[in-house]
Amino acid sequence: MIRKLVAEGLGTALLLVSVIGSGIMGEGLSDGNVAIALLANAIATGCMLYCIITVLGPISGAHFNPAVTLAFALRREIGMVMALAYVIVQVAGGLLGVWATHAMFDLPLLQVSETLHRTRPAQWWSEGIATFGLLFVIFGGLKSRPDAVPTLVALYITGAYWFTSSTSFANPAVTLARGFSDTFAGIYPGHIAAFVTVQCVAAVLSVAVFRRLFH
Amino acid sequence: MIRKLVAEGLGTALLLVSVIGSGIMGEGLSDGNVAIALLANAIATGCMLYCIITVLGPISGAHFNPAVTLAFALRREIGMVMALAYVIVQVAGGLLGVWATHAMFDLPLLQVSETLHRTRPAQWWSEGIATFGLLFVIFGGLKSRPDAVPTLVALYITGAYWFTSSTSFANPAVTLARGFSDTFAGIYPGHIAAFVTVQCVAAVLSVAVFRRLFH
Amino acid sequence: MIRKLVAEGLGTALLLVSVIGSGIMGEGLSDGNVAIALLANAIATGCMLYCIITVLGPISGAHFNPAVTLAFALRREIGMVMALAYVIVQVAGGLLGVWATHAMFDLPLLQVSETLHRTRPAQWWSEGIATFGLLFVIFGGLKSRPDAVPTLVALYITGAYWFTSSTSFANPAVTLARGFSDTFAGIYPGHIAAFVTVQCVAAVLSVAVFRRLFH
Amino acid sequence: MIRKLVAEGLGTALLLVSVIGSGIMGEGLSDGNVAIALLANAIATGCMLYCIITVLGPISGAHFNPAVTLAFALRREIGMVMALAYVIVQVAGGLLGVWATHAMFDLPLLQVSETLHRTRPAQWWSEGIATFGLLFVIFGGLKSRPDAVPTLVALYITGAYWFTSSTSFANPAVTLARGFSDTFAGIYPGHIAAFVTVQCVAAVLSVAVFRRLFH
Repeated sequence: MIRKLVAEGLGTALLLVSVIGSGIMGEGLSDGNVAIALLANAIATGCMLYCIITVLGPISGAHFNPAVTLAFALRREIGMVMALAYVIVQVAGGLLGVWATHAMFDLPLLQVSETLHRTRPAQWWSEGIATFGLLFVIFGGLKSRPDAVPTLVALYITGAYWFTSSTSFANPAVTLARGFSDTFAGIYPGHIAAFVTVQCVAAVLSVAVFRRLFH
Repeated sequence: MIRKLVAEGLGTALLLVSVIGSGIMGEGLSDGNVAIALLANAIATGCMLYCIITVLGPISGAHFNPAVTLAFALRREIGMVMALAYVIVQVAGGLLGVWATHAMFDLPLLQVSETLHRTRPAQWWSEGIATFGLLFVIFGGLKSRPDAVPTLVALYITGAYWFTSSTSFANPAVTLARGFSDTFAGIYPGHIAAFVTVQCVAAVLSVAVFRRLFH
Repeated sequence: MIRKLVAEGLGTALLLVSVIGSGIMGEGLSDGNVAIALLANAIATGCMLYCIITVLGPISGAHFNPAVTLAFALRREIGMVMALAYVIVQVAGGLLGVWATHAMFDLPLLQVSETLHRTRPAQWWSEGIATFGLLFVIFGGLKSRPDAVPTLVALYITGAYWFTSSTSFANPAVTLARGFSDTFAGIYPGHIAAFVTVQCVAAVLSVAVFRRLFH
Repeated sequence: MIRKLVAEGLGTALLLVSVIGSGIMGEGLSDGNVAIALLANAIATGCMLYCIITVLGPISGAHFNPAVTLAFALRREIGMVMALAYVIVQVAGGLLGVWATHAMFDLPLLQVSETLHRTRPAQWWSEGIATFGLLFVIFGGLKSRPDAVPTLVALYITGAYWFTSSTSFANPAVTLARGFSDTFAGIYPGHIAAFVTVQCVAAVLSVAVFRRLFH
């Protein structure tokens, strides 16, 4: 059980390293061309997702995402206590990942994001679609081709950075951690609750839908 | 049968989400550099194609494209009634995907494209090549390496965005749905019929050619 | 045998469509930023290489390249008559691919390239390295992991666009065909012979080296 | 044993060709937009890593990296004499790769980098994270899915170019060789020792950590 929790924490930390770090680097180098920064951000995140899911999947199932853990709990594939422990280490790992990244870029470790544009109903709807699509590739992939799940999640998120207006956080631990980075990938903390709520509601609805579609 | 139709509708909706959404995002962020917008558009579409074909292939065959359904019907691998039902849900799914995307980007749901440059014989010839190539990777891949078909289609379309002057619609349901989005990926409705006609003719010819080449 | 020759001709034609078409599109959209044009060019070519090698490999071996056919002939894995026939259809297919692409972009079919910068000893050395590396992944991949050869060649060429000064033609049929397109990917016809010579010499040397390394 | 050493030398040479060459090309074409240069650099390096690990893995284990060889030696999976020989050919191969690349781009073969920004504690911490992550995907991948190791390393490094401030050298032979190229990917020789030290320390610590996590 310790190994599972270490895997969830380490994986989520590495995920945040990829999200925050490539955002900082992209913004720093792209000379104001946000599209190139986002392209690098999306590619780097997808690369890391493939790595952490492939490597840690056999140990912990490679959730790295409380919405995914919630969905597995609703499917009774993980117990409530374990699910809670997963969520705790995911959140802790996410924060550690953010701080490790700030140290890499010579930034103050503790920051609070002032990125104010990540709110509005359109963004919440985006997060709903994003989370629905993420669980679609996870539960659909587990049914159709389990060995492709790392690739599915990696490519899905790489694409979803672009086809949702919120750039697809789709992950409450990632959303929370991004509140503590005043960099390209940040989100104003006051806007986190709405994102997380939508992600969790989408997870619950997705479980119901996919139970039928992929029974 | 209901599951098959749901799969075709859902997959086509997600395909349009990726095409329209990444087009809007790309155009919005790239500061007038259309090449970067198109690169993001192509990558996001390819990512989604891999996902929907891998996940939904075992359920419905993952056509998401009336020209593909037509080709399978000509090969007598799908019945006429089912083929018609497929086309209907593909078209409906495509429109729903467009509207879901407009909602994500805070745009009016109902729009009509005024993108006027998607016509001319050169573009029709492009759509012919694009559709021929798409059926080449589908029918050739099914023969040579069926498990690679999701990758083949995803990479083919990612490339074809770039090597055809029409950016490779190659799909009547996608073409029709793009008529209802006045965004980067749009097409003026008056130009749809020519694209769809060429796509269908190319599909018919391709079936004949590939019957021999991949017998 | 006819099917093999059709496969070699069709595959080489599609390869040129991807090289020439994405070059035209990239140059046209990138507003003078050649790096973005080359990135699109490299990605589109890699995508197509994966497709044609995966689909046509089981039919013809998927050479699409006289230097590769020469190498297989030196290894006595293809007879001399067949090798000659391969080279002829590769060249013919390459030209047809160029013309099909010009038609897609509303350009005169018959053109002669005036791109003058593809000469100099440094570029010839580049073509030598490029061809050596290409045969390295082909013959090494056939030994270590045959099912990965389409991916190996696709990724190798995508990278080689960037790490050689010549952008890695590495293929006499492609080189010749590119002489007949006065677009981004063109090469002045007077500079073709040197490229082709280096490519063939590199192929001969590579066969000797890899016979030992991958025996 | 000779074949193993040739494989390590050749692979490291090709790795440096991809790193240095794509850096030169990227910087030359991107018109001052460093983000595009780095994107090309990262993609080209990832492409090459996939190729050399897939092709040469069965021969030498495909280290191409003294930190990796050190880690395998600590795990007693390679003897001390062989490990030393590996490191020597890796360094020699890296230098040959740099010189071969300079020749491709018409640059003086012998150069010393004057790139001064690759120092500072933040960059050393980056190299520590980068090397830790590299060994994470190697040892974790060997445990969870050995056939995915080429993809894991390739994607990890492609992403790590972006999410570390040092662009992830993570390899003492590569670091040393990059000291001898006054181009985009260079590093001032006086800053090499710190990078190499951190890389080796990270390798030692990683072996201890991963022995438990992936036992």
